[in-house]
Amino acid sequence: MSNNSQKIVVIGAQAAGLGAAAAAKKLNRKLNVTVLEQSIYASSSPCGLPYFVGGEIEDVRKLTFAEPAIIRDRMGIDLRLEHKALSINTKAKCVTCTDINESQYVLEYDRLIIATGASPKVPPVEGVDAEGVFTLRNIGDAERIRNYIADNSPRKAVVVGAGYIGLEMAEALTHLGLEVTVLEMLPQILTSMDPDMAEFAQQHLENNGLLIKTNSALEKIVPNERGSVGSVVAAGGTIDADIVILALGVRPNISLAKEAGIEIGECGAIAVDEGQRTSVPDVFAAGDCCQSLHIVSGRQVCMPLATVAEKQARVAGENAAGGNAKSAGILGTSISGAFGMVFASTGLITEAAKNHCSGALSQAFMGHSHAAYYPNPRPLKLKLIFDQSTGRILGAQAVGEEGALARINALISATYAGLTVADLAQLDLPYAPPFGSSWDPIHVVSMMAMRRVRLSPE
Amino acid sequence: MSNNSQKIVVIGAQAAGLGAAAAAKKLNRKLNVTVLEQSIYASSSPCGLPYFVGGEIEDVRKLTFAEPAIIRDRMGIDLRLEHKALSINTKAKCVTCTDINESQYVLEYDRLIIATGASPKVPPVEGVDAEGVFTLRNIGDAERIRNYIADNSPRKAVVVGAGYIGLEMAEALTHLGLEVTVLEMLPQILTSMDPDMAEFAQQHLENNGLLIKTNSALEKIVPNERGSVGSVVAAGGTIDADIVILALGVRPNISLAKEAGIEIGECGAIAVDEGQRTSVPDVFAAGDCCQSLHIVSGRQVCMPLATVAEKQARVAGENAAGGNAKSAGILGTSISGAFGMVFASTGLITEAAKNHCSGALSQAFMGHSHAAYYPNPRPLKLKLIFDQSTGRILGAQAVGEEGALARINALISATYAGLTVADLAQLDLPYAPPFGSSWDPIHVVSMMAMRRVRLSPE
Repeated sequence: MSNNSQKIVVIGAQAAGLGAAAAAKKLNRKLNVTVLEQSIYASSSPCGLPYFVGGEIEDVRKLTFAEPAIIRDRMGIDLRLEHKALSINTKAKCVTCTDINESQYVLEYDRLIIATGASPKVPPVEGVDAEGVFTLRNIGDAERIRNYIADNSPRKAVVVGAGYIGLEMAEALTHLGLEVTVLEMLPQILTSMDPDMAEFAQQHLENNGLLIKTNSALEKIVPNERGSVGSVVAAGGTIDADIVILALGVRPNISLAKEAGIEIGECGAIAVDEGQRTSVPDVFAAGDCCQSLHIVSGRQVCMPLATVAEKQARVAGENAAGGNAKSAGILGTSISGAFGMVFASTGLITEAAKNHCSGALSQAFMGHSHAAYYPNPRPLKLKLIFDQSTGRILGAQAVGEEGALARINALISATYAGLTVADLAQLDLPYAPPFGSSWDPIHVVSMMAMRRVRLSPE
Repeated sequence: MSNNSQKIVVIGAQAAGLGAAAAAKKLNRKLNVTVLEQSIYASSSPCGLPYFVGGEIEDVRKLTFAEPAIIRDRMGIDLRLEHKALSINTKAKCVTCTDINESQYVLEYDRLIIATGASPKVPPVEGVDAEGVFTLRNIGDAERIRNYIADNSPRKAVVVGAGYIGLEMAEALTHLGLEVTVLEMLPQILTSMDPDMAEFAQQHLENNGLLIKTNSALEKIVPNERGSVGSVVAAGGTIDADIVILALGVRPNISLAKEAGIEIGECGAIAVDEGQRTSVPDVFAAGDCCQSLHIVSGRQVCMPLATVAEKQARVAGENAAGGNAKSAGILGTSISGAFGMVFASTGLITEAAKNHCSGALSQAFMGHSHAAYYPNPRPLKLKLIFDQSTGRILGAQAVGEEGALARINALISATYAGLTVADLAQLDLPYAPPFGSSWDPIHVVSMMAMRRVRLSPE
């Protein structure tokens, strides 16, 4: 765009929307960038919410990265809080929206960036709107949960969904003194991991007081006589509950885009190319509302994570400002922790890898975080998923109280670079007694995997 | 070797020697493997010694990985403690040695593995043999230091040399209540790092009570009237000292090999090929006594580390047993820590990189170990060394109280794989508030580096 007064409109002011706006302004300070945000919060961090509920983060202001005044004055972005986009007209290149008084107006754009994010899934069962039933997606949700706990002193909590947010919330509520049951409809917790890795994590969580029920789909929520939640029915059994957290994951917010005729991808999110361009000229998308290219599988996937959103936002913002940036694609990396144990994964889990490549194998190893002779080594379980005909790494997982992040980080670069288990078996990893072993658990699991590559029929 | 009764002789029974012996036996259980060890210890870990001196490791037996009985009975290795190799005759294929009674005998071999290790450097100054002056290389040294401290209750210690062992010993002695001064003849501590990284580490060590004097070469050690150490003279000044630890690094033990006509490499260690073969047929070498191929520089270097030794040992052992293994080469990775801070590096430091590649640049960034809004983020300094014309990573360093190991691990795989700063800038690294930031410090330093690649004259 040679005309510096051209207008970029961004829908959404969380990680992706503001990240894109900032990237556009950074490339061309003279651009006119307007960001519409339907809530009263901009630049907030959903990842921090469980820690705010649990009290580890005390000040709610810490959950937003930049004050509106800074966004407006220092970054030069026309941030419009409580302005809601109602529709997009891609032919006329304008967005119809409402302002803070709910008055409609029309905003023209030269380039549009859709960063509408995702919304928590709410299961279609009776009682989900009872008082005391919450989802957790934004600062308002977290404040409502904190207030409810302060006002009602619940003793028993049920968390529905044993993914990262569910487990983080289960830990937070346990720290607040509640007795917590986690319900998961699938046979395992943490479905971004293989079942044996999830099982290792589950043992630790149970040892720390969580009651976890797998194969337990939520059937209904039963209010008490005061209309607030009293119990939960799941897999035929009833569990007393004074508070319920629904943590079933999120669904991309695509209706604005869909109604505007913008293509939606197979995974149900907005389809974009590597430049974050949608199917419609001059319209970009970034963050939880759009899909990502998984580098290992070559497929388009939904991966609603801040890490992905911020990288896509930078590409979308730069390109909307006339740049030519490219998204590298993702590995599907994720990490979380509860009760001192860390769960981390990257690449494909075994099941997905087998769908992608018939020769996919996996190898697990239970090692230690550091030299056995140095005090307090902690169990550390690693798993490699690899192609048996080439040894190439397709994915990796690490679970343990110490050293899981360090191992997954080595394995992330390795997966990205297409290294093989033979490369890993001799990789010059660091060792000193407090930090590892001269044969790191990565070496051990890689050597175990290597023997299976060698034995494979060619 | 088709003849199963063929004989492998190994000189040295520490990490490299025993590792090689075990690898040979593993490949062919029927081989006759004899290991000569001049000390009374086999399979001991020098890396654990500072922690034994400091009392964190209480039981000396924890410093050996396998009891002699296990090595002999379970592993089937003819381990001969207190047997010393005197000479090697590579034409007659035999080793002349002395037994426990110092009687000479001759041992024939089909394949020989030299794993003679390295010995501490002792500076050629007056007073180094005073009582109370120690080097630290083996369990006997560590026990002597512990006994000396128990018997003499020294109050002031001087550690000469501010490398990893020197700093680990300085921490150990501080924990035991001594006042510790560290002398380093060079202008910086930790020469495996760039000066600014070492400076950041030094501040932390000084804040924890260490007195560190750089540019302070040891001139002499002055005994007191009882003949034990009383003070140290360095760079013209005198420092009171009740105990002195010489930690100036090690020198490869090559005299046996050299006298046998085996080629010594430029770096002063035994020259080997990627199969750990020396210049003489049927003679292999592994560990601190031999050189390693540095993958980034393509040069042969001395890197006396357990990690390197054990990998070389496996290759030497397999090949001596008739295998065809190859050493992958090293990245020069090392790690250490003191007073809660971790110092880690891989690849080339800036100075070495500039010698290797005229376009080498470096970029440092002081970030945080995890999200600023989650309690207690710790400063974490990263440095990338890269080729400005291609962006390829040539080396990396990480110093911090939290997260340094995780970052160096990602950067080790990246350096090994030849990734660029542009790859790293979009790498799908994990993030959750307790473990990182959505833009990891690796991303930030890589983006800073990327701008300098883009600006480079082509």
